[in-house]
Amino acid sequence: MSKYYLGVDVGGTTVKLGLFNEEGLILEKWEITTKTENNGIAILPDVAKTILDKLVEKNIDKQDVIGVGVGVPGAVDINGVVNTAVNLGWGVLDIKQTLSTLLDIPVEAANDANIAALGEMWKGGGIGYQNLVAVTLGTGVGGGIIINGKILTGCNGAAGEIGHIRVNFQEEQRCNCGIKGCLEQYASATGVVRLTKKHLQENKLPSILRESEITAKVLFDAVKEGDQLAIVIAEEFGEYLGNALASIAGVVNPEVFVIGGGVSKAGEILLTFIQKYYKESVFFANRETKFALAILGNDAGIYGAAKMVFK
Amino acid sequence: MSKYYLGVDVGGTTVKLGLFNEEGLILEKWEITTKTENNGIAILPDVAKTILDKLVEKNIDKQDVIGVGVGVPGAVDINGVVNTAVNLGWGVLDIKQTLSTLLDIPVEAANDANIAALGEMWKGGGIGYQNLVAVTLGTGVGGGIIINGKILTGCNGAAGEIGHIRVNFQEEQRCNCGIKGCLEQYASATGVVRLTKKHLQENKLPSILRESEITAKVLFDAVKEGDQLAIVIAEEFGEYLGNALASIAGVVNPEVFVIGGGVSKAGEILLTFIQKYYKESVFFANRETKFALAILGNDAGIYGAAKMVFK
Repeated sequence: MSKYYLGVDVGGTTVKLGLFNEEGLILEKWEITTKTENNGIAILPDVAKTILDKLVEKNIDKQDVIGVGVGVPGAVDINGVVNTAVNLGWGVLDIKQTLSTLLDIPVEAANDANIAALGEMWKGGGIGYQNLVAVTLGTGVGGGIIINGKILTGCNGAAGEIGHIRVNFQEEQRCNCGIKGCLEQYASATGVVRLTKKHLQENKLPSILRESEITAKVLFDAVKEGDQLAIVIAEEFGEYLGNALASIAGVVNPEVFVIGGGVSKAGEILLTFIQKYYKESVFFANRETKFALAILGNDAGIYGAAKMVFK
Repeated sequence: MSKYYLGVDVGGTTVKLGLFNEEGLILEKWEITTKTENNGIAILPDVAKTILDKLVEKNIDKQDVIGVGVGVPGAVDINGVVNTAVNLGWGVLDIKQTLSTLLDIPVEAANDANIAALGEMWKGGGIGYQNLVAVTLGTGVGGGIIINGKILTGCNGAAGEIGHIRVNFQEEQRCNCGIKGCLEQYASATGVVRLTKKHLQENKLPSILRESEITAKVLFDAVKEGDQLAIVIAEEFGEYLGNALASIAGVVNPEVFVIGGGVSKAGEILLTFIQKYYKESVFFANRETKFALAILGNDAGIYGAAKMVFK
């Protein structure tokens, strides 16, 4: 009899789900709306219902489902308990127990950035590696750390929260977290825009950046065209991020950094600027660490969630 | 029949050994000289001989020894292979296989800073915790990271090499590693002396530090006596180390930092200065991380080495 796995990525707007076979191939991918009202009380029952409906539709016996992996936007401890997921309306919730009771199928749960890292290791930019740090340069800067093929959770689920490593002790503006000079202030999508606008204001150089709406892709496209101001900004971006990754390497000694999120749409050129400063700052034992772009995009979560329960 | 464990800490001058019983109590502790000549070819045979002699002396049957744990000053991978231990004269050496063949007893091997961390978790300043970062402020700055009770090794044995995290991008002098502004330049025993001498030269303030040979203990004793210049130096020390530990917490989210090495002889006052800056820099999820002093001193290695094989 064939065996199956499910990966579930719970976001603030939609829940993404994936059904996998025993070869680890995705058979079907679908979404439902995340109902965050009433402290998100309906979310897990809705997830259970759509999974059970899918099993009926596919004529899959519940006994043939090995497990369901779930990622959520919050700190999840090693027992599958989340401690506050603001975007879902949740306080403390035992996801593993609640959902496994609803489904009568084994469940594992973890933080969404961590499962995305696991997904990239399994089927994405980190394929072939067992020790990686995934860096998501999105609205904020998130991270997920995989050690010997397993998620590094930390004592209260906050391992890999690398967006708030301080990289500039001279910064005068505060990060959303309240501290000044966090990596997120320079390397997130909003951080790149902020950094670019600052340079456009302070510098009189002509630049094609003055004529367009700024994104990381626009910035790095300008770099490719030889725009001098864009190069200055890209260097500063690379310096902060490269230095931060050098510190992280000194702590966990990974094989590869996998860079994803909206900013990574700028492409391979991004890695050039990061690696330049990384190599200048890093301890020699980590000088040969690889760099790769993430490739699964928004599907990294469902892949990683399934991988958590994949035997 | 009683069961036994051995912990071995191989240093550049002496090899420390400890014999433990099945309750984890140390029964005997002894040392032999480390013979580093001829690329340290005699070291493991000497270790095997002293262990076998001890078992004969104590009338312990080899079958009752569950295992021997070994720590060495070099990067050791998860298979127990060291890649260069300069202080021992070793290149690449499979410690686990070589010593277990000589002894006919199971062997595990790891880096000495990592086993010291494990020792402090088991019987020292980190007792009761399963996720800790041990920081050794000695000649250099070393570190060992324990996750869920196990050593974090990293892909080539360099996890926890936190002494070369860059903390001052304005530094003009190079660290021994070749990079400028490493934590080790300020927080090691030599780093504290360097920092103190720099302030004594640049600053005209009267200070009792001008009359004594500088050590971390002398510095912090002067702080306790209200010496203004000593306080300035202690603040700078605390700022670099506190900021570095905040970055490390953002990566691995530990329960506790255990601070050891010669510099930690300054006592609890050291922690006050570290924690002040740690709290200012750290992501909120890590704000309540505990700080403790190491308590096993030079015995941390044999305890941790034994713990590696302790069931």
